[in-house]
Amino acid sequence: MTISATESAATNARIAHPDYQSKVMDAAAAASLIKSGDAVGMSGFTGAGYPKAVPQALAAQIEEAQAKGDNFKIRVLSGASTGPELDGALAKAKGIDFRLPYNSDPIAREQINAGTMQYVDMHLSQVAPATWQGFLGPLDVALVEVSAILPDGSIVPSSSVGNNKTWLDRADRIILEVNSWQSASLEGMHDIYYGTALPPNRVPIPLVRPQDRIGQPTFRVDPSKVVAVVPTDIPDRNAPFKAPDDAALKIAGHLMQFFAHEVKVGRLPKELLPIQSGVGNIANAVLHGLLDSPFEQLTSFTEVLQDGMLELLAADKLTMASCTAFSLSPEAAEMLNNDMARYRDRIILRPQEISNHPELVRRLGCLAMNGMIEADIYGNVNSTHLMGSRIQNGIGGSGDFARNAYISIFMAPSTAKGGKISTIVPQVSHVDHIDQDVQVIVTDQGLADLRGLAPKQRAEKVIANCVHPAYRDMLADYYARALHGSYGKHSPSLLNEALSWHQRFVETGSMLP
Amino acid sequence: MTISATESAATNARIAHPDYQSKVMDAAAAASLIKSGDAVGMSGFTGAGYPKAVPQALAAQIEEAQAKGDNFKIRVLSGASTGPELDGALAKAKGIDFRLPYNSDPIAREQINAGTMQYVDMHLSQVAPATWQGFLGPLDVALVEVSAILPDGSIVPSSSVGNNKTWLDRADRIILEVNSWQSASLEGMHDIYYGTALPPNRVPIPLVRPQDRIGQPTFRVDPSKVVAVVPTDIPDRNAPFKAPDDAALKIAGHLMQFFAHEVKVGRLPKELLPIQSGVGNIANAVLHGLLDSPFEQLTSFTEVLQDGMLELLAADKLTMASCTAFSLSPEAAEMLNNDMARYRDRIILRPQEISNHPELVRRLGCLAMNGMIEADIYGNVNSTHLMGSRIQNGIGGSGDFARNAYISIFMAPSTAKGGKISTIVPQVSHVDHIDQDVQVIVTDQGLADLRGLAPKQRAEKVIANCVHPAYRDMLADYYARALHGSYGKHSPSLLNEALSWHQRFVETGSMLP
Repeated sequence: MTISATESAATNARIAHPDYQSKVMDAAAAASLIKSGDAVGMSGFTGAGYPKAVPQALAAQIEEAQAKGDNFKIRVLSGASTGPELDGALAKAKGIDFRLPYNSDPIAREQINAGTMQYVDMHLSQVAPATWQGFLGPLDVALVEVSAILPDGSIVPSSSVGNNKTWLDRADRIILEVNSWQSASLEGMHDIYYGTALPPNRVPIPLVRPQDRIGQPTFRVDPSKVVAVVPTDIPDRNAPFKAPDDAALKIAGHLMQFFAHEVKVGRLPKELLPIQSGVGNIANAVLHGLLDSPFEQLTSFTEVLQDGMLELLAADKLTMASCTAFSLSPEAAEMLNNDMARYRDRIILRPQEISNHPELVRRLGCLAMNGMIEADIYGNVNSTHLMGSRIQNGIGGSGDFARNAYISIFMAPSTAKGGKISTIVPQVSHVDHIDQDVQVIVTDQGLADLRGLAPKQRAEKVIANCVHPAYRDMLADYYARALHGSYGKHSPSLLNEALSWHQRFVETGSMLP
Repeated sequence: MTISATESAATNARIAHPDYQSKVMDAAAAASLIKSGDAVGMSGFTGAGYPKAVPQALAAQIEEAQAKGDNFKIRVLSGASTGPELDGALAKAKGIDFRLPYNSDPIAREQINAGTMQYVDMHLSQVAPATWQGFLGPLDVALVEVSAILPDGSIVPSSSVGNNKTWLDRADRIILEVNSWQSASLEGMHDIYYGTALPPNRVPIPLVRPQDRIGQPTFRVDPSKVVAVVPTDIPDRNAPFKAPDDAALKIAGHLMQFFAHEVKVGRLPKELLPIQSGVGNIANAVLHGLLDSPFEQLTSFTEVLQDGMLELLAADKLTMASCTAFSLSPEAAEMLNNDMARYRDRIILRPQEISNHPELVRRLGCLAMNGMIEADIYGNVNSTHLMGSRIQNGIGGSGDFARNAYISIFMAPSTAKGGKISTIVPQVSHVDHIDQDVQVIVTDQGLADLRGLAPKQRAEKVIANCVHPAYRDMLADYYARALHGSYGKHSPSLLNEALSWHQRFVETGSMLP
């Protein structure tokens, strides 16, 4: 990569401090500063704000080294998912030995499920504290995309914050990508909290409303640790969202009805409580549902700002959004970048240990809405593992929110793979959310409000309200036999049948007999 | 029950306010104020501070009513476990329709597992907020043991605090048992926090060290809601602890070695961090192990003060203990009651929503040590269900602590039932603690430190360090075959064998082939 005169002018505007200007180099030169075996803390959260040039250059160098018989591999730590230029390129080069805390890249996923990449699927709020506590080993390099370096040397974050504060604080060496594709108006939108500590010195986090700012808009960086600054101009991944399908619209409808009822009986205020929403089409459908709802003056305290939330902001239904990252379609990203002045005072981007902090989720009383792979009749939820062993993405922040939410809601269409998989099963093949952390289950078939119910009461409601008709009789039959044949009758189960639907799918390609 | 002249004098000393004196009646009269269908919030936590006279009188009235064909049943909410005079007597009378959030009574347990009593096993920190949020239905009666009513009408709690503040605040009618068996010196030991609220009005809990007092020593009660005051003089359940056996001593030894190593490498301060310890013989052995350890100036932030912790206080190894209840042997209870002046400034009893609050557990960085029924090779833990369906006690506070702890440790002997059950299994039959919330597993065989490890790395360590030799080859063989035959190889499993050890136990009485 060479730097043309035009690029150089842009570079100077975004890299406004002489100490950093002197460290400008191209991606290949920067990548060569990363060694085999290094643990690299990367920026990036749901395809936003990840480094794009250096990982690709590093992948090329890894392929070269491996062609010479050198087993060059690194450890990759991130905020959450990144993009094809990072996880995709490095995985393709077989350059990732160990990955945490979240992945959605298809190439990396294949290697994880082939057993060739070690992957630690973590609660996203816990990555930063675990790093400080020394539980994840030393951190050699921080490779972080930023949107600008200011004249005083302070650093403006990019379209995600993730674990960047921690990577910058903890790493021995720092490589910065300064991406001029990111809107210059991002400056001032971030709230970087510098009040965390190790116990016994931790104090209350002074945030009592989603709109509170408790930190500063920029990162503090020790310039002596910065070994390279790489100017880039590359868009975030920004995957398009599909329009919500019939199942998603039905799920959204059931939820709107539920919220309306809770407000009516006085268990929710009329402006609801801060919304947390997972990513994806169903989440977007639910947010879209809120657009046409009677609820006003909504707030959000969540991980990710996606299209549906931007629509709510645009319509003034949502007064503000607190998150750690954008996750927008190309159209929404363009709209936001072109009209940033309109949104910038109503969006706060925070470190993920704050956006997802159990202390804050419980204090604010978030309404947590997360997707799932499957749920069982007792309301245990599997968010991660297909057939108990093959990981899809990861638990992400769902555990941070679900356990501490005011109401924890999980949702999915009642079937997958064209009806060959039932979302509701006798026993989940892997547990991410125990029944205590699951208060409401919603499918296109209906909603089961499980609050205050004992296991058998939960089972009856889930079977009656959430199961697809193609599986309902089969599940009711299983449960009826479990009621009589189970070892204990608190949470009746038949051990030799509990996972048989999954086994049938593995053997025949369908859970249907 | 009649009140003699002597009892009456004692009564007057403990019931020092005329409004309350006028409501004194015997247990039968008070019990008759509880109606069929009532939801009754009872005091009681690990056999301490539960009402003892009224539940027995109520049980007699229920038996009488049922003999007449009247299906008299109540809903029982408590702090945690109580005693034979409460759960035992009411269950024996078939008087409990619905029970939450924790039970360890053998008669109630039989009914739960026979499917005749509905039981909701809850995170103990969440009972009070769920009550305020209206998720557990209306509360008709609070039946609460206290140790005194002061001249100004304020109420001195008993040997547990549990959910009493919430029951007293929320119930329509209040019945107080004033137990003069409880030490008069309890006055001043409690710290009742009145700063909780419903969102959006929640604020940070202003506790930054285990020894901080953030509330007041007594309950505020609206006297107009009090319908009966019953004087009693009955000891708490106070079950004896067995001396630690060989397995417990080995577990304690492994843990002491682990803590010493963590201090040495700088991941723990030399006075450790606030200790949370579950109840039981292994927990006591671990606490006993701390007595002979090099660690000084320890603190605890936990649910329960048991014998081992009292020993640590007596030896000045522990500077103070924060808890919500006592759970002492008869000898330790006597020692404490006789020498209360020595301990009272170093013990704080709090509401369980505070003793177990995720915000505080994470802030203080508790070292969480909890027992388990079984763990699987990936470190998922089952704390509650035998063979997946038969509940033993409940999740209690283990989830409040494990997810938010500095280090979350689970421990158990490597086998149960004389070797017929392996504590380490291919897949747990029920999940209470997901692998993300389990950092260390300890059995008599050894300790597996799972921090920062991916699933297959975890499995190798658990199989190498924790499994009993009688099961080790069988488990290694299962895992080796899963590595090849699994659908996905992230967390390899064989669906048709994952629960086969449990099934074999149900069929043959042993997990061994």
